[in-house]
Amino acid sequence: MSDAPLALSLGEPGGIGPEIAVKAWEAMREDGPAFFAVGDAAAIDRASPLSGATVRIADPDEAGAAFADALPVIDRPLAIAVEPGQPSSAAAASVVGWIAEAARLTLEGRASALVTGPIAKNTLYEGGFAFPGHTEFLGQLAGAKEDGGRGPVMMLVAGDLRASLVTIHEPLARVPSLLTKAAIVNAGLVTARALQADFGFEAPRLAVAGLNPHAGEDGSIGREETETIGPAVAALRAAGVDARGPFPADSLFHAEARSRFDGALCLYHDQALIPAKLIDFWGGVNLTLGLAIVRASPDHGVALDIAGKGLARPDSLIAALRLAHDIAKRRARAGISRCSS
Amino acid sequence: MSDAPLALSLGEPGGIGPEIAVKAWEAMREDGPAFFAVGDAAAIDRASPLSGATVRIADPDEAGAAFADALPVIDRPLAIAVEPGQPSSAAAASVVGWIAEAARLTLEGRASALVTGPIAKNTLYEGGFAFPGHTEFLGQLAGAKEDGGRGPVMMLVAGDLRASLVTIHEPLARVPSLLTKAAIVNAGLVTARALQADFGFEAPRLAVAGLNPHAGEDGSIGREETETIGPAVAALRAAGVDARGPFPADSLFHAEARSRFDGALCLYHDQALIPAKLIDFWGGVNLTLGLAIVRASPDHGVALDIAGKGLARPDSLIAALRLAHDIAKRRARAGISRCSS
Repeated sequence: MSDAPLALSLGEPGGIGPEIAVKAWEAMREDGPAFFAVGDAAAIDRASPLSGATVRIADPDEAGAAFADALPVIDRPLAIAVEPGQPSSAAAASVVGWIAEAARLTLEGRASALVTGPIAKNTLYEGGFAFPGHTEFLGQLAGAKEDGGRGPVMMLVAGDLRASLVTIHEPLARVPSLLTKAAIVNAGLVTARALQADFGFEAPRLAVAGLNPHAGEDGSIGREETETIGPAVAALRAAGVDARGPFPADSLFHAEARSRFDGALCLYHDQALIPAKLIDFWGGVNLTLGLAIVRASPDHGVALDIAGKGLARPDSLIAALRLAHDIAKRRARAGISRCSS
Repeated sequence: MSDAPLALSLGEPGGIGPEIAVKAWEAMREDGPAFFAVGDAAAIDRASPLSGATVRIADPDEAGAAFADALPVIDRPLAIAVEPGQPSSAAAASVVGWIAEAARLTLEGRASALVTGPIAKNTLYEGGFAFPGHTEFLGQLAGAKEDGGRGPVMMLVAGDLRASLVTIHEPLARVPSLLTKAAIVNAGLVTARALQADFGFEAPRLAVAGLNPHAGEDGSIGREETETIGPAVAALRAAGVDARGPFPADSLFHAEARSRFDGALCLYHDQALIPAKLIDFWGGVNLTLGLAIVRASPDHGVALDIAGKGLARPDSLIAALRLAHDIAKRRARAGISRCSS
């Protein structure tokens, strides 16, 4: 099962997804790990200066042998043409279908892990997509599992920083009310489990960030630390997780601080994304924890402003493919089945 | 006037202030710039392994000649002894008095700039101190000036990042309601003026951060960007400031992004402090803009856990002294008087 190829859903065809797919294949064709795309093969061909960059396959089993010569694609053509830089809601059903098919193949074990190309959320919403993003969609599709905590939980991996999030795409004004003790404990349990199972830390050290300046300075700058976050850290410790904090977020992410923990639990989007993108702007990876499958993606968007210009960098997609492969292999070695744990 | 020495208020005597003062003097005694401390000379002597590290002076004029041989101190002894690691509210009046005296000497031009050692805010509050911190205290003491915008405004300087703040020590839950258009425009005007007068950018480029994930993604994740921050950017541009944004905060601080602007306007404490402390954890400087004097300080606190152990690093204090000196010289060259502009 860990010898199965990785599945890549192509993402928004009007964005940089097709271009970075073929660039990642060029970088990885010799040494792998092998992957195949699910999407519109013609869109990938148009994004490549090479002729014959893709090869149509009918089954994931064909991907490994084909990979050195061309990017294997399970071809699901768009009904309408999409120009670079111009996403169309008419393509939304196809884009969502590619994700669903790649996820299904991964759930069935015919792909080792799912990597998703970036999507244009507003375009999908206009096309009827009813989830905030990939993470929540896959939570439904790919079996969020009960395993101490319940997924999906988003984690950013950049260099030696592994930072997961209690809240994701929420207006900042809503964040304080969403930070319940239960939500923090759940994300902490899912994160600790992933640090063990997916990253190999036997007794992972989890640093929990504070919400307010100086982590509230003993309650004088906000009371969330004393009333909610601190008790959540205590509950995590009672559940056997080596959790510490809450720590002032501004002193949590420099190299020396990072050496003191294996994972950071962040409370809101930019608290994790600002340090992740400073530590590795081009090579960060977005992981979804707490699913029955391994799922990773680049940590950037569709970059419509440079789509079709040959300027897109595949670093983050390559990092996502490699990390997904490493995690899938680790799970396979540990005998963790995909559908339970 | 730019030949006058810098004034350093000693800060909390139970913290690392005395130790970093004498360490900074050791690092700077040969090449300067010269500074003198205002505080308890005996506390500095106790923090130094050298005997005779300090010399009492009666007037700032004596500091320059004495500086190569000893740290000049305007000695204002504590009435009670303070042990390292154990701040006492009984010392609060002295600590506040040192700040006030150092600020007054700077206002009078007898010191070129004010640098403040870290204070223990809770201890000062217990001792009756009625300001949230140095910044607000100095706003009253040292003549916040009307100059387009009105100070004080806090700026963090770390490497090539110059990030100023619209809100400072506020609970995160209060931040959205504090982010009025007027507050953002005011901080932007003060910042732009400081980038010109204090840093020498003729037409400074100011990047304004968004509040929400992805800067609200066109209003789908919070409306502050469209309703408040965007209009504030437009108002700054109408006032002649080359302001841009709001930009997603997570993509604003890596090296390539920083090369596109001279200053960043951040909306809340950790939005500026997380990147500043990642870019330079040890050498960051806190500046107060919009005062009639130049004021800088280290960007760290009193570090009670290591006080008296000889472990404190003076990097940030040294950087603060050097930056304050550079700015004071620039203002003097430009003929900017301290009390008007």
